[in-house]
Amino acid sequence: MRFFDDVSVGDRFTGGPVTVSAEEIIGFAGQFDPQPFHLDHEAAASTLFGGLAASGWHTAGLTMRMIVGSDAKLAGGYIGLGVDAVTWPKPTRPGDTLRIEGEVLEARLSAKRPTNGVARVRIVTLNQKDEVVQTLIANLLVPTRASLAVPA
Amino acid sequence: MRFFDDVSVGDRFTGGPVTVSAEEIIGFAGQFDPQPFHLDHEAAASTLFGGLAASGWHTAGLTMRMIVGSDAKLAGGYIGLGVDAVTWPKPTRPGDTLRIEGEVLEARLSAKRPTNGVARVRIVTLNQKDEVVQTLIANLLVPTRASLAVPA
Repeated sequence: MRFFDDVSVGDRFTGGPVTVSAEEIIGFAGQFDPQPFHLDHEAAASTLFGGLAASGWHTAGLTMRMIVGSDAKLAGGYIGLGVDAVTWPKPTRPGDTLRIEGEVLEARLSAKRPTNGVARVRIVTLNQKDEVVQTLIANLLVPTRASLAVPA
Repeated sequence: MRFFDDVSVGDRFTGGPVTVSAEEIIGFAGQFDPQPFHLDHEAAASTLFGGLAASGWHTAGLTMRMIVGSDAKLAGGYIGLGVDAVTWPKPTRPGDTLRIEGEVLEARLSAKRPTNGVARVRIVTLNQKDEVVQTLIANLLVPTRASLAVPA
């Protein structure tokens, strides 16, 4: 387990793979992004998507799953204070196999919670053709070893 | 249906409500954010969450559902070019009823796709106590009326 003390700018981590099916794409969209281009290939064909595409928020959820399973192994888990940017350069398609590549951009002690640090990370989600389907810059709360001595 | 021609800075829109159950919180987390504080109330009690909390990405998905059902009624749907910021000031809890308040911050023609505009919007997600559980700043691609004359 890595604490904030063990995190350095430039550290890299990876996660995945995860494969996503048409059924999963449609299922997610039905719950969270019920728009024709995320629900139906025919309907999507006449839009700029050109065919069934996953909701960007589905790609984000899959990315989070891969972050949790990644080799970053952060103590205390992955607690997002917030996100600075998300882009979706290409859609995630049925059958795509995704993976993530992460990098620590900044690391600073938290002003509000000084037994924690904040790690600013860039996480790039790629498909099997090494095309980028999402970029994410997020701020994670990472406990210091000293936090272990603090009563819960 | 509102086209880019009908969108002005300062325009406001609303959506929701949506109520989220513990079962849904755990179900989403099991798929996309499998961390103890999103899966189990007991496990969450000893963390900074203090009890079962929805994944921020679940709040984001619920927000997207409410955007799609909102009174913004954008022609062409809600196509996110990207997100500039997400914050999660308070967690979404089991039984919360959420709603959204949106505002158009900027509106400009797209350089890459000139029969479209880009609307930069801020969307605030609130619970039943009027507490903010998410803020989101996103850039949406919105077609102009002129785009209707362009062959698909």
